[in-house]
Amino acid sequence: MDLKKVLQENIDHLSSIGNDPTGGMTRLLYSDSWLEAQKSVKETLEAIGMTASFDEIGNLFGRVEGTEHPEETILSGSHIDTVVNGGNLDGQFGVIAAYVAIQYLLETHGKPKRSLEVISMAEEEGSRFPTVFWGSKNFVGEAKKEDVIEIADFEGLKFVEEMQRHGFDFRDESKAARDDIKAFVEIHIEQGTVLEKEQLQIGVVNNIAGQRRYTIVLKGEANHAGTTPMGYRKDAVYAFAKICSQAIDRALEVGDPLVLTFGKVEPKPNTVNVVPGEVLFTMDCRHTDSGELHAFTQEIEQLMKDIAAQHGLEIDIDLWMDEAPVPMNEEIVTAIETAAKAENMKYKVMHSGAGHDSQIIAPNFPTAMIFVPSINGISHNPAEATDIDDLVNGVKVLASTLYELAYK
Amino acid sequence: MDLKKVLQENIDHLSSIGNDPTGGMTRLLYSDSWLEAQKSVKETLEAIGMTASFDEIGNLFGRVEGTEHPEETILSGSHIDTVVNGGNLDGQFGVIAAYVAIQYLLETHGKPKRSLEVISMAEEEGSRFPTVFWGSKNFVGEAKKEDVIEIADFEGLKFVEEMQRHGFDFRDESKAARDDIKAFVEIHIEQGTVLEKEQLQIGVVNNIAGQRRYTIVLKGEANHAGTTPMGYRKDAVYAFAKICSQAIDRALEVGDPLVLTFGKVEPKPNTVNVVPGEVLFTMDCRHTDSGELHAFTQEIEQLMKDIAAQHGLEIDIDLWMDEAPVPMNEEIVTAIETAAKAENMKYKVMHSGAGHDSQIIAPNFPTAMIFVPSINGISHNPAEATDIDDLVNGVKVLASTLYELAYK
Repeated sequence: MDLKKVLQENIDHLSSIGNDPTGGMTRLLYSDSWLEAQKSVKETLEAIGMTASFDEIGNLFGRVEGTEHPEETILSGSHIDTVVNGGNLDGQFGVIAAYVAIQYLLETHGKPKRSLEVISMAEEEGSRFPTVFWGSKNFVGEAKKEDVIEIADFEGLKFVEEMQRHGFDFRDESKAARDDIKAFVEIHIEQGTVLEKEQLQIGVVNNIAGQRRYTIVLKGEANHAGTTPMGYRKDAVYAFAKICSQAIDRALEVGDPLVLTFGKVEPKPNTVNVVPGEVLFTMDCRHTDSGELHAFTQEIEQLMKDIAAQHGLEIDIDLWMDEAPVPMNEEIVTAIETAAKAENMKYKVMHSGAGHDSQIIAPNFPTAMIFVPSINGISHNPAEATDIDDLVNGVKVLASTLYELAYK
Repeated sequence: MDLKKVLQENIDHLSSIGNDPTGGMTRLLYSDSWLEAQKSVKETLEAIGMTASFDEIGNLFGRVEGTEHPEETILSGSHIDTVVNGGNLDGQFGVIAAYVAIQYLLETHGKPKRSLEVISMAEEEGSRFPTVFWGSKNFVGEAKKEDVIEIADFEGLKFVEEMQRHGFDFRDESKAARDDIKAFVEIHIEQGTVLEKEQLQIGVVNNIAGQRRYTIVLKGEANHAGTTPMGYRKDAVYAFAKICSQAIDRALEVGDPLVLTFGKVEPKPNTVNVVPGEVLFTMDCRHTDSGELHAFTQEIEQLMKDIAAQHGLEIDIDLWMDEAPVPMNEEIVTAIETAAKAENMKYKVMHSGAGHDSQIIAPNFPTAMIFVPSINGISHNPAEATDIDDLVNGVKVLASTLYELAYK
C-alpha cells in the first residue's frame, strides 16, 4: 500500500466537500457539506472493511472487531467540522489518518486482537453555534440538552432544528457512556512552530495546557494631550503599557511552558491628541500545571491592581475562561514514543497549547495525542499546510501506536 | 456698566446662532450660521460705537480711532467658528470679551490714545475643510489661494464656492499685510485643568508649545497564543508596551513643560488568542522649547528603534506634524501681568499646550494671551464651561491690559 498516495487522495477528496469559494474550507456543524463529508467518510470506512454508524447526534464511528478481546476498543480520530475559511488539515487529517492507518494495519497484519475504531466527531471548533466540543462531549456523556436547546447560528437558524433536519437528535442522557474504550489516540497538526523550528517530525503530546482568559478595563481620565501636564494625568494606556511589559518580562523569567498574551488593546477615545481615559485589554495565560497557572495569574492580577492604584485608576478584572490543564495518559504517551522510535522519527515529548477533543476525552478514557509539523505554524487559515512526507510520518507513527495497543 | 450681565447676555445671544440640535454648537466656516454670527457681531460692534467691516475672506473687524496715535492699533479677538458639537466659549468668548472690554473702556475712559480694534476671525478649528487658521493666516498675509482652491468639505461642497456664496473671495496676495498692529491680545479658555487645580483666576500665556506628532507601525509576527512559546514570539504589543512605558517614564523624569501622549493604539488582529503581529500607534509630544522638543523626540525615536531591534521587529516611524513653539511678546506678557496685579487676580505665567490663532499672529505682531479656567478642563464638547465670575475676571484683566496699551 502506497501510504503517501492513499493519504493524499483521501485528503484531496474530503477537502473537496465544503470547499469555500471565499477561501479555504467552511464545513460547519449540521450544514449540508458537513453531512456530505460525514457520509463520504462512512462510505470510505465501509469500503476498507469497517462497520460504520452514527450515534444520535451525528458522531460517526467505524469499527473492526477484535479477535481476542473484542470488548476492548482502541480508538482514533478527530473532528470533521472546520472554522469559517479554515484549512484542510485541522480536524479532518486526524480522521483520515485514523482510517488510513487502520486500513494499512488490516492489509499488513490482518484483524486486530482488540477492536479498532475510528471516530469522526461532529463538532469541535464552535464556529457556527455558541457551543464547543459538541462531538466529544456527547461521546463521553457530558453534553447537555439544556446547553443548546435555545441557541441559534448567526443567521438565526436554530441548533435543534438544524440537527433534526439531518435526522439527528439528542442522545439519551440517562444512558451511561461507553466503558469499552481502552485508548484514544488523536493525531493533529501542531498549529505552532516548535516542531518546525526544532526540525522534528513528531510531537508526542503529554499534556494539554490549561488556560485562563481575562478582559480587563482600566479607567482613568481622558484629557487634552496638550494642556494636561504629565503630573495631572490618569493615562490608562501608560498603565496598560506598564502592566503588559512587566507581566511579559515576568512570564519570560518563569519560562516554558508558561505563555502570556495581551492580544486585544482598545483605548478610548483612541485619538492622537487625547490622553486615553480608558483602555480595555485581554490577557490569555496558559500552562500545563494547574498550580503554576493559578499562582502566576494571581501574581499578575496583583501586579495589575498595584499599577492601577499607583496611577489612581479604577480597574475591573474579569476572568471569563478558566480551563484546567489536562494531562495525557502516561502509558499511551509511552506507546507513542515507542512507536516513534520504532519508525526512526525525530520527536519530542511536548504539550499542546491549543485546545483539542482529547482534553474532553482524556478525563474519561486513556488518551494521548500525536502532532505533526505545521508550516509556519499557520492554522485556521486557507494557508494551513504540512509537508505530505510529514503527514505520512504521522500516519506511520499512529499505525505503529495502534499496532502496539491493538495487536499485541 | 454691569460687566457680568452684559457678558452673559452677549454669550447667550451669540450661542443661539449655530445651536446644534445634536448637542452644543456647530458653526462651521462659510455656513449660514457662521455668516449670521459674524453679521450679529458686526451689529454689536456698531452699536457700541465702533466702525465695523469685513476683509475679503470674511474676518470681521471693529475699530475705534485713537485720539493721539491713530496709526497705532491695539487688537484683541479670537475666532468665530466652532468644532462640530462644540462648546460656547472656545473662540467666541475671545471675540465677545474683546468688544465688551472695549465697550467698558469707552464708557469709563472715553476714546483711546491709540486705535482699538476687535477681530472676529473667520476660522481656526479646521472642522469643515481640510485647512486650519484660515482667518489668522489671511490677516497676517500668509494664507495661500493654492492651499484651498481644490478642497471641499465632507459633503463635497467646494471651499471656494462656499466662500463666494456669501460674497467673500481671496485676498489680494500682492498686497502687503498691515503694519499698524502694535499689540494683539487674545483671551481664551484654558482647555486644561492647571488653573482650576491650582485655584488661579488668570493664566498669562508666554508661549504656545511646539508639537510633533508621529504615527508608528511595529511589525512582528502574528502567532497562536497557545502554541507559540514565549521565546519564538515577535509580539508587537509587548514591544509597544516597553516603548510607551519607558518613553513616558523618561518624559516624567524630564518634567514640565514636556508632555508625551500615546493616544491611539491599534493592534492586529486584535484578538484575545492571537499574539499581535502588528501594532499602529501614535505619539504626540509638546514642549515650549524647540531644542528640547527635538532632543527629546530624537531620544525617543532611538529608544523605539532599539526596542524594535531587540524584539526582531520592523519599525516605521512617520513624523507628520512638526510645529515649532511660539514665544509670546515679553512686553505684552508684562502688560497682562501688570493688569492681573492691578485687578488683584491670582495668576500664573504659563504656556499653552493647545494651538491658537495667536501662534500665527505672534511671529508678525507683538502678541500674548490670557487664559481663564476651564471647568474640568473640558473643551470641544457641549459640557465646555467656565464659571461666569471667572469669565468676568478675564474681561477685567483684558480691559486693564488694553487700557495699559491704548490709553497710556
